[in-house]
Amino acid sequence: MAIGAGPEIERLMALLSKLPGLGPRSARRAALALLKRREQLLIPLTNAMQDAADKVESCRICGALSTQNPCATCADPGRDKTMICVVEEDSALWAMERVGAFSGRYHVLGGLLSALDGVRPEDLRIDGLVERVRSGHITEVIMALPATVEGQTTAHYVADRLRPLGNGVQITYLARGVPVGGDLDWLDDGTISHAFKQRR
Amino acid sequence: MAIGAGPEIERLMALLSKLPGLGPRSARRAALALLKRREQLLIPLTNAMQDAADKVESCRICGALSTQNPCATCADPGRDKTMICVVEEDSALWAMERVGAFSGRYHVLGGLLSALDGVRPEDLRIDGLVERVRSGHITEVIMALPATVEGQTTAHYVADRLRPLGNGVQITYLARGVPVGGDLDWLDDGTISHAFKQRR
Repeated sequence: MAIGAGPEIERLMALLSKLPGLGPRSARRAALALLKRREQLLIPLTNAMQDAADKVESCRICGALSTQNPCATCADPGRDKTMICVVEEDSALWAMERVGAFSGRYHVLGGLLSALDGVRPEDLRIDGLVERVRSGHITEVIMALPATVEGQTTAHYVADRLRPLGNGVQITYLARGVPVGGDLDWLDDGTISHAFKQRR
Repeated sequence: MAIGAGPEIERLMALLSKLPGLGPRSARRAALALLKRREQLLIPLTNAMQDAADKVESCRICGALSTQNPCATCADPGRDKTMICVVEEDSALWAMERVGAFSGRYHVLGGLLSALDGVRPEDLRIDGLVERVRSGHITEVIMALPATVEGQTTAHYVADRLRPLGNGVQITYLARGVPVGGDLDWLDDGTISHAFKQRR
């Protein structure tokens, strides 16, 4: 894809196309937008990325990406220390925080168990979670993992690791059913059948 | 959208969401991908953007974005000096170069005339084009501008500026019609009617 604009621009496009949701064409558009809006976009974004590269790390308690360590959530004395919400990734944590329904703390596993992709328990932050439940006064662990095969396999594995601790910790799962505002016609059969069986 | 990950991460997301094709959700996904792939993506992309910010400028002859000045195309002695292809933006230039059908030089206007958006002739690189045609031995100027109202208005305005120079320069326009591989059923009426009238 030689376009005669120099290797720096081609390299910029190649790297932008590695971002999720950007293909070669949208990466070219993004590169052009950056180069045309040098002062308003290219330089501020470069600085923001440099800042992130310098300051963001994983919280040593929960594993969340943050510029503080421990992260703001773990360090906040106002949050319930007895509840831990287990999520796959930071994106799920961010979604929970936007909703604002949970006032406890989090644990970011950093992925899901997958025989296919070769992700084993030791590749995830499971030992750290077991340690937190063993040593803290945790009463409830909420599994907010995806409702996929990998998500549920991981939830069961984690629950099996927590139960033998024998300190009466309750393990709960997010409810499953019809999404709020969801039309049955657009839902998959599995969700409808599950929602029907669990009707109340 | 406070997510408790710190202002640096929120700022990164806010800036990423200004890229074309990225909304708030895809900007969050892009930010997470960057932060999770620090060594493979975040740092190389930051460096590529810094490089681009430092080195890329507009060619003083044709206006194209390039790390050289004059750009590689203008500086290439192997390219036909007598033909100029006029484009709106670098993206059109890149598209022409990918195709490889044109061996002359370019002129990037940097936009299109638009009464609505307040884009006037002096906001575009039109004077520079007139000067190139006046002083060089140009035999043909190809208007490769979009087939929109603004594109065609701009093409006519530019042609009106070039004609009085009286040095016999030929002004041509990209052919219009059915795209290669295009099915009539999917085409707009204007294109079909134009292609019919211009049949040969």
